[in-house]
Amino acid sequence: MTAVGDFGLIGLAVMGQNLILNAADHGFTVVAFNRTVAKVDRFLNEEAKGKSIVGAHSIQEFIQKLKKPRRMMMLVMAGKPVDDFIELLLQGGAEPGDIIIDGGNSHFPDTNRRTRYLSEKGIRFVGTGVSGGEEGARYGPSLMPGGNEEAWPYIKSVFQSIAAKSDGEPCCEWVGDEGAGHYVKMVHNGIEYGDMQLICEAYDIMKRGLGMSQKEMGDVLTSWNKGVLDSFLIEITRDIMYYTDDDGSPLLEKILDSAGQKGTGKWTAINALDLGMPVTLIGEAVFARCLSSLKAERGRASKVLEGPTPSFTGNRAEFLENLEQALYASKIISYAQGFMLMQDAAKDYGWKLHKPEIALMWRGGCIIRSVFLKDITKAYRANPDLENLLFDDFFNKAVHKAQPGWRDVVSKGALWGIPTPAFSTALSWFDGYRSANLPANLLQAQRDYFGAHTFKIKAEHASDKYPEGKDIHVNWTGRGGNVSASTYTA
Amino acid sequence: MTAVGDFGLIGLAVMGQNLILNAADHGFTVVAFNRTVAKVDRFLNEEAKGKSIVGAHSIQEFIQKLKKPRRMMMLVMAGKPVDDFIELLLQGGAEPGDIIIDGGNSHFPDTNRRTRYLSEKGIRFVGTGVSGGEEGARYGPSLMPGGNEEAWPYIKSVFQSIAAKSDGEPCCEWVGDEGAGHYVKMVHNGIEYGDMQLICEAYDIMKRGLGMSQKEMGDVLTSWNKGVLDSFLIEITRDIMYYTDDDGSPLLEKILDSAGQKGTGKWTAINALDLGMPVTLIGEAVFARCLSSLKAERGRASKVLEGPTPSFTGNRAEFLENLEQALYASKIISYAQGFMLMQDAAKDYGWKLHKPEIALMWRGGCIIRSVFLKDITKAYRANPDLENLLFDDFFNKAVHKAQPGWRDVVSKGALWGIPTPAFSTALSWFDGYRSANLPANLLQAQRDYFGAHTFKIKAEHASDKYPEGKDIHVNWTGRGGNVSASTYTA
Repeated sequence: MTAVGDFGLIGLAVMGQNLILNAADHGFTVVAFNRTVAKVDRFLNEEAKGKSIVGAHSIQEFIQKLKKPRRMMMLVMAGKPVDDFIELLLQGGAEPGDIIIDGGNSHFPDTNRRTRYLSEKGIRFVGTGVSGGEEGARYGPSLMPGGNEEAWPYIKSVFQSIAAKSDGEPCCEWVGDEGAGHYVKMVHNGIEYGDMQLICEAYDIMKRGLGMSQKEMGDVLTSWNKGVLDSFLIEITRDIMYYTDDDGSPLLEKILDSAGQKGTGKWTAINALDLGMPVTLIGEAVFARCLSSLKAERGRASKVLEGPTPSFTGNRAEFLENLEQALYASKIISYAQGFMLMQDAAKDYGWKLHKPEIALMWRGGCIIRSVFLKDITKAYRANPDLENLLFDDFFNKAVHKAQPGWRDVVSKGALWGIPTPAFSTALSWFDGYRSANLPANLLQAQRDYFGAHTFKIKAEHASDKYPEGKDIHVNWTGRGGNVSASTYTA
Repeated sequence: MTAVGDFGLIGLAVMGQNLILNAADHGFTVVAFNRTVAKVDRFLNEEAKGKSIVGAHSIQEFIQKLKKPRRMMMLVMAGKPVDDFIELLLQGGAEPGDIIIDGGNSHFPDTNRRTRYLSEKGIRFVGTGVSGGEEGARYGPSLMPGGNEEAWPYIKSVFQSIAAKSDGEPCCEWVGDEGAGHYVKMVHNGIEYGDMQLICEAYDIMKRGLGMSQKEMGDVLTSWNKGVLDSFLIEITRDIMYYTDDDGSPLLEKILDSAGQKGTGKWTAINALDLGMPVTLIGEAVFARCLSSLKAERGRASKVLEGPTPSFTGNRAEFLENLEQALYASKIISYAQGFMLMQDAAKDYGWKLHKPEIALMWRGGCIIRSVFLKDITKAYRANPDLENLLFDDFFNKAVHKAQPGWRDVVSKGALWGIPTPAFSTALSWFDGYRSANLPANLLQAQRDYFGAHTFKIKAEHASDKYPEGKDIHVNWTGRGGNVSASTYTA
């Protein structure tokens, strides 16, 4: 058997087929394999016909048809199937130096484990995020590879050829060690949850707060898509607003308001809690989906819980500008939080993560692609060590400009009785983040009072009695001993 | 050796010593053991002198001195030490029928595992939440036991004797199977995080929004503690406000605003995400602690991020009533969320949880004890199957009465630039919960547009084309095939 293949792909669902076609379009000879081998023949006789694509009917054949070092990518279900195929490849003849790539939605700790396991056998493992859905896979996905960096020189040309391009640059760079690629994909998905929730809140305010029609909302989105919010998600929301059913009525209003999720947003929120980073917007976005799914209970609650009736009286065009600013500012906060999380994860997990490259990877091909990410790329290219997006001049100015409108929308949502969990948490976070002093001093006093958990003193109040950095306990009740009390009467 | 002991306790840190003294006060003969045996003798010669307390210098002696079935409680560090002592007890002579109790802050999955493991050996394992700090342990803690229910008849008298009493009823009942006791303790701690955060936000609004002095705030808390907010945490906050340093200035203002945490709030938030229950207030409370701990970064941010200057012009007394209502309503939401979580956990984990008893256990002895919990007990006693606290007549009225003030505070916080993450998320959750229709229909349309994730149709819009309950996919772009697109131009 001649080793003709530049690149091998296992798993011929639509995503896999499309990635193969994409790679073949870019001049690579691709070897295709699927566990149900009938699928290989069907693919070869149909979509793959006449292209530089060859089939394999066994793992052994798949391996033998690839040039060394072999570049073998799996697009199979995350979890056990990935481990199973790794074992099959090892038994089927994979050799030291070969490269195994997992392109599924694996959880990053699994990718950490697999990178180490295969590294011991001399095999270079790569876990890569792939975003952009089926269309992205076919014509240019966003690719976020991480794992064993030795693999990168061998897969770079394939990956960067098939990836989406943004201003001529490929939306694919090496992310970092071990599970770093899947980690960044996870955060990408979390941010996607946040972006979608923000748009939903804007829609709810336009619909219930301003009483706008779908056509009117579609026109607003059309205009937003020409400004700072220009993005794939705004674009498709515009299409959705204009989409009518056969009877001419908007389809959107007929769709059940009970959101599904596949877990990556949840992973991001859990990881943020684990690392102790306040990624509040993604957290609220995940919880908002959970609340939406309690559809029947909400129906019962709506019958016994009353609220105000929104009544808008001001200038609608002005308020819509405020809404655009609220969405924009909240989005800035969400991305600032996301990059804080990745920065902290890199430190905690010992990864090198390249922030300008991450922003670049998200600029094209994926669901959150936007003009906005161009500005983020610019900010991190200008200063790769930027501590926080809000310290960048462009975003600093943007958030200041957006503030009045943002505050107006959040306060009106509260008064009107329209939920704005993501707008609100973003604003509270912003106000907390810019507070040199937060009320957590009281929290520490409480913890010391009831549990003798001790506190520290503010630097500017340090003294001989209360030295800076020392754990201090105070006898709050005036009664003896170190034991705090609960029955003190003033 | 004569078996004289009614109850054995391992671990003579302050909590353990106090629990022993408490049990001895109630007429039980207690056997005390500690790994460092010198501590046993010291305890016997000092605090325990003259009481019905005997010491043991080995695990074997500890076991032999206890009447059968032996009731042996550990108060040791959560984690490996618990497993280690279980093995020591097994090797040291624990017999089928004996009872081993873990009173530490164990994570409930560990308690699940241990209950099953020991059940196979005929040993009844109990994991119990213990709340109330050192003082509680001495004079009446809140106890939340779960695990192997066969143990309950044998430990009930000890537990209910030493527990706190509320209106004469012991704050201790059997919680449920396996890790249910530790689970309820975990949620208790999460709710404690929420209660503390709410008080911090009220403090911040009084301080930065109204410019009040500590003395003035102490007076407000004194008055709140006579109304619906009457609780241990409000009481100690009042004490903290009045507490002055040697120089007469308030100590509180000198305390570093960087909050610590021991992880149980985080566990609750993670569990809520895992179960898909929108427990948003605890989530925000945990994240608020995380944000507070970024003290240095906040300091830098405060220099480059500006906001409005709060300027209050209305009637201060009236606004303070609104603030009380905001705190009260947010607290109702937090407890409603907490009970929803426990209800869902019981279903998911196959536990029977008794909601009236849980509220009763939290009424006395623990950090969140309050008059409020008396009303919750009443609500669940009147209707143990109550779907949600907000459906109870008392809380339904309370939340409606609180609404205008609550909305006023949240909207002013947004306009003033004072963060109110917990007040705000509670209000957004309330407005979402009482919405028969949320904007998640848009989210489902987006997911179907870019990922063909399908959606369902609202019951009232079901038709032959779109049957109720069916997964529907629409070709949003008007282009062929099932693959969603991104480049459609209207």
